[in-house]
Amino acid sequence: MNELINKLREFTAERDWEQFHSPKNLSMALAVEVAEILEHFQWLTEEQSRHLDQETLIKVREEIGDVQIYLARLADQLGLSPLDAALEKLEINRQKYPPDKARGNSKKSTAFDR
Amino acid sequence: MNELINKLREFTAERDWEQFHSPKNLSMALAVEVAEILEHFQWLTEEQSRHLDQETLIKVREEIGDVQIYLARLADQLGLSPLDAALEKLEINRQKYPPDKARGNSKKSTAFDR
Amino acid sequence: MNELINKLREFTAERDWEQFHSPKNLSMALAVEVAEILEHFQWLTEEQSRHLDQETLIKVREEIGDVQIYLARLADQLGLSPLDAALEKLEINRQKYPPDKARGNSKKSTAFDR
Amino acid sequence: MNELINKLREFTAERDWEQFHSPKNLSMALAVEVAEILEHFQWLTEEQSRHLDQETLIKVREEIGDVQIYLARLADQLGLSPLDAALEKLEINRQKYPPDKARGNSKKSTAFDR
Repeated sequence: MNELINKLREFTAERDWEQFHSPKNLSMALAVEVAEILEHFQWLTEEQSRHLDQETLIKVREEIGDVQIYLARLADQLGLSPLDAALEKLEINRQKYPPDKARGNSKKSTAFDR
Repeated sequence: MNELINKLREFTAERDWEQFHSPKNLSMALAVEVAEILEHFQWLTEEQSRHLDQETLIKVREEIGDVQIYLARLADQLGLSPLDAALEKLEINRQKYPPDKARGNSKKSTAFDR
Repeated sequence: MNELINKLREFTAERDWEQFHSPKNLSMALAVEVAEILEHFQWLTEEQSRHLDQETLIKVREEIGDVQIYLARLADQLGLSPLDAALEKLEINRQKYPPDKARGNSKKSTAFDR
Repeated sequence: MNELINKLREFTAERDWEQFHSPKNLSMALAVEVAEILEHFQWLTEEQSRHLDQETLIKVREEIGDVQIYLARLADQLGLSPLDAALEKLEINRQKYPPDKARGNSKKSTAFDR
């Protein structure tokens, strides 16, 4: 992750794009990239989405790369580490949703995000 | 990142949530979390988004954590590493947008995503 | 639709919110509201999403109302009618995807959006 | 709106796409289309977004048409009218955010959506 963040800083500076990379703009770019993932899955069944053909998988991988790029860039512009943020959030969720209560419960499977 | 991915596997297995974590569903959850970042920035000016107050920053950090969690989980379900995907995509962009041509050009600042 | 657009103009003017309603900001608000619809569907199967319980339906209806509000407001700020835009786009799609070629083809079911 | 909804029903039936149009899938398609609006605005300043050039305006109009199409289609699949939902939601907001308290207050300008 540090390698990615450093390369993104360098990439941005070389092109003088710092001026465009406000957190507001980066959050929009992040949403645009996530939608490009959604686009691949919108008409597939859940089962089909678990077994992508090679061609689609390659495209989805590129979109995942883009989302990771913008997420790292956004976090960095705010002085944050996305990995530390994720690990801490997961710890919060672990305490909030004990396994025995949440088992197999789709109502609780929003646990990552609450 | 490996630590995060492993913890997410364990977290999911303990709660028997694998059944809900189709790539299709995870892409939707990712979109929902990104929108929670957008929500903080929607009425701010770009300048304001560069100088968040401490309270907002803490909330945005949690949302960034959620996005990173779902992105890692989605990538893992597809057998992918989000970091490798990002680093490779960045290399492609580097060749596509040479610094001297893209400098300070907002039309090209979509370079991360093409 | 005209009634809605006129009421939104009045609502905005009475609260002096015109200053916040740039098309850029309104597009973000639109994305936030759409994600609130997604949130209700993310862990449901497609079949479940076709048979919502009354409580969920009422909530989804409110989110649909919000999306329609922001869409109408965004279109109006750009001097556009969302209904005219939709009817014209549908005509384009009708010519692009003749029924006999597109029948039952999920690859083509993205026809509304191309 | 009724004309649009009826045409969409006919369009869908002629192509045998009803099978793909679960509310879950339509909510994803809606999110994809909204992101195509965001894409036009992501690197613009708010001021620039208020003064689009003719070429961009034409493209944004098409995306707005797509969003309206999917919103109408989603609402119809749930047995709802998007316009009625919007007008009722606006009435709720009117009571929630009296003009004298909300005037020029960006914190309250999320009023449409709460």
